[in-house]
Amino acid sequence: MNEINESFLTDWAVSSKFGAVKGTNGVERQAASAADGEQRKWFEGLLEGHGFTVKRDAIGNQFGLLELVPGAPFVLVGSHMDSQPTAGRFDGAYGVMSGAHACFALAEEFRNHPERARFNLAVVNWFNEEGSRFKPSMMGSSVFTGKLPLDVALDTVDGQGVSVREALDLIDERGDLDRIEVASYAEIHVQQGRSMEEDGVTIGLVNATWAAHKFEFKITGEQAHSGATAMPDRRDALLGAARLVVAARELVDEFEPGMLHTACGELNVYPNSPVVVASEVTLLLDLRSPSGDVIRDAYEKLMATVEKVRQNDGVDVEIIAEHSWDQNPYPEAGVELAREVAAELSLTHDRVLTVAGHDSTNMKDEVPTVMLFVPSVNGVSHNLDEFTHDDDLLAGLQALTGVVRKLAEGALAPENPAVLGTRVSS
Amino acid sequence: MNEINESFLTDWAVSSKFGAVKGTNGVERQAASAADGEQRKWFEGLLEGHGFTVKRDAIGNQFGLLELVPGAPFVLVGSHMDSQPTAGRFDGAYGVMSGAHACFALAEEFRNHPERARFNLAVVNWFNEEGSRFKPSMMGSSVFTGKLPLDVALDTVDGQGVSVREALDLIDERGDLDRIEVASYAEIHVQQGRSMEEDGVTIGLVNATWAAHKFEFKITGEQAHSGATAMPDRRDALLGAARLVVAARELVDEFEPGMLHTACGELNVYPNSPVVVASEVTLLLDLRSPSGDVIRDAYEKLMATVEKVRQNDGVDVEIIAEHSWDQNPYPEAGVELAREVAAELSLTHDRVLTVAGHDSTNMKDEVPTVMLFVPSVNGVSHNLDEFTHDDDLLAGLQALTGVVRKLAEGALAPENPAVLGTRVSS
Repeated sequence: MNEINESFLTDWAVSSKFGAVKGTNGVERQAASAADGEQRKWFEGLLEGHGFTVKRDAIGNQFGLLELVPGAPFVLVGSHMDSQPTAGRFDGAYGVMSGAHACFALAEEFRNHPERARFNLAVVNWFNEEGSRFKPSMMGSSVFTGKLPLDVALDTVDGQGVSVREALDLIDERGDLDRIEVASYAEIHVQQGRSMEEDGVTIGLVNATWAAHKFEFKITGEQAHSGATAMPDRRDALLGAARLVVAARELVDEFEPGMLHTACGELNVYPNSPVVVASEVTLLLDLRSPSGDVIRDAYEKLMATVEKVRQNDGVDVEIIAEHSWDQNPYPEAGVELAREVAAELSLTHDRVLTVAGHDSTNMKDEVPTVMLFVPSVNGVSHNLDEFTHDDDLLAGLQALTGVVRKLAEGALAPENPAVLGTRVSS
Repeated sequence: MNEINESFLTDWAVSSKFGAVKGTNGVERQAASAADGEQRKWFEGLLEGHGFTVKRDAIGNQFGLLELVPGAPFVLVGSHMDSQPTAGRFDGAYGVMSGAHACFALAEEFRNHPERARFNLAVVNWFNEEGSRFKPSMMGSSVFTGKLPLDVALDTVDGQGVSVREALDLIDERGDLDRIEVASYAEIHVQQGRSMEEDGVTIGLVNATWAAHKFEFKITGEQAHSGATAMPDRRDALLGAARLVVAARELVDEFEPGMLHTACGELNVYPNSPVVVASEVTLLLDLRSPSGDVIRDAYEKLMATVEKVRQNDGVDVEIIAEHSWDQNPYPEAGVELAREVAAELSLTHDRVLTVAGHDSTNMKDEVPTVMLFVPSVNGVSHNLDEFTHDDDLLAGLQALTGVVRKLAEGALAPENPAVLGTRVSS
């Protein structure tokens, strides 16, 4: 095994210890938790040890900056180290660690051949990609790209009423990096699905995200004694919500296999007491499809069910937030660049859609962006048993290094690099 | 209005201020909350002002004792002052306050005619009847009657991990009253249903509780990415739970109207994150009926649904706790005593079943017990808008006073009064 690979696997093993869940191979490292904070401090030391300058911005995005070409824009590479509760150790952490190691190797190369570097290198660990503790997901990259106001993000509270501002201060991760000039962005992630494993593909060239429609429903009924109240007198918010959960699953069978994914991940009941009919339930419900037409069709059918629930169960069903997007392409030039690199390295590769969102989804709207996948065994994701073989981790590192090398040498260079960053509010 | 009624309504108005929910007529006074503690301190003063000695036992049951006949057993009368979240101000609080005022009036009578009293008087405010913060419900009377071990109760924790022991200590309501001799028990409550209002009945003579079967289900699936995981690969615990919630409601329509009440009041999801398929859901599900046969039939049908959910949704469904009882009669002699009193007072009255459990359900297994109801407008219960007219409150007070008078004079007197109480653990 070469030195780069060995060094990566060693650091990767250490990195996976932060928030490790006892008796499992997984981690729990929700955004701005103690484990997230400890890992960030360790990561800072790792970056500094390789000559990078570490800075944070006001929403806690952590950057390792290496200036090779004074004053030039940066090629940014990374992902996120935060995790879902009781989750796998790969997910975003693999992207940050391979981004860092790609830059470590390239820093060495460019120090020996400074004439080849056109741009500087920056590693990023985005804040709160997962959105499990603080909503919405992809918070750090959304603020960085100006899609979410800084103050709105900082004021967001978790289930215990702790704000992002307070939580970041507790781990001392709010900083003052104001803005940086970004030439391009690259990210690698384990696939959250099993198509690549099934098709024998080592490097996924991500060319689009699935279309989606996400809802936050509020179902309102009326508190009542859950034993004594006559059944026709009840307006049961939990019953209304349960009908939507079941309807979401049944919707899937109305389309071709694989064309619609639906889910209800979060449901909260008030007052959630043994002998009280619930007066209010909030429910997150997602529709996802590779086809925007399927999403629109599923939306119509879901709204018909909502109307039926309103009528039959006497509850009010309100959409308190919704968010939708059509199939959303990654820039073709980035896909082609990734293909060239994979071909040069003789790694099997194919174009692949991503169902899940990534920080690159935000970045691709601002700068030339490349998104890569490596396979995940059985596609297991957001689960303690998530696993990717070392060979695939190292192949991904190699491909990412090749992509970042080309980007730093000037590939995909825009005429005017974007000036991005988290402006500190006055 | 006579002095007794005026005094009751004045004290009742003060009592309803503890835990009052702003902008409503309701209260939130969960067991051992600050509001519960403040009301108990006020109630202590009220009892002492009428010459009662106030003591607590080790599970926080609050007693006001009045010795009229040195060394004689007590007639116990009361209910509970704790409430559900955002609940009505009547519920158990009416029973405690009318119990106290019945005893205040009788204390006066018996002081003037000491020869009439055969037993002493005690008012009780049972701890945690509601079971919303700490399970199970009827905790105080269950410990007092030896049905629930004291240490098990004290070690019970709420959703924040606070134990009953800690919560009671915070409001300084754990005491050392060891045991008392109880001759009989009386309780009054607002009806949690609308049959009395519809039938024009002022005093309900409670002659039995409905049969019931209560379940705590644990539904186990597997954590997965809620967007990317292929639908056939999912084992969604929330979907399994939702199917049971819907099935519980649909079960009702398989029986004659009014013969089956079902409910799911509490449902907790793990990890309850926007993009994670739930791995575990706990769900409380109740079946209630005036008929034990209906319960048994509904149980079979529910188990068939559970099996279907296991098969079709790939989740495990486990019953982690269950508790059932058949139609459970109150002693006929107590019903007859209550009928006599209501007839003497020319108050309309009728026998009535209770769907909900009450502390009297525990007490009736130990001592002669009388349970009365007054009507509740539209049967609204466990809701901020719960309401009972003053006339009905006062009629109930009059009937309860009549019942307690007869009990104290020796009616229903058992040969050997029960020695009951919360033994302090060594």
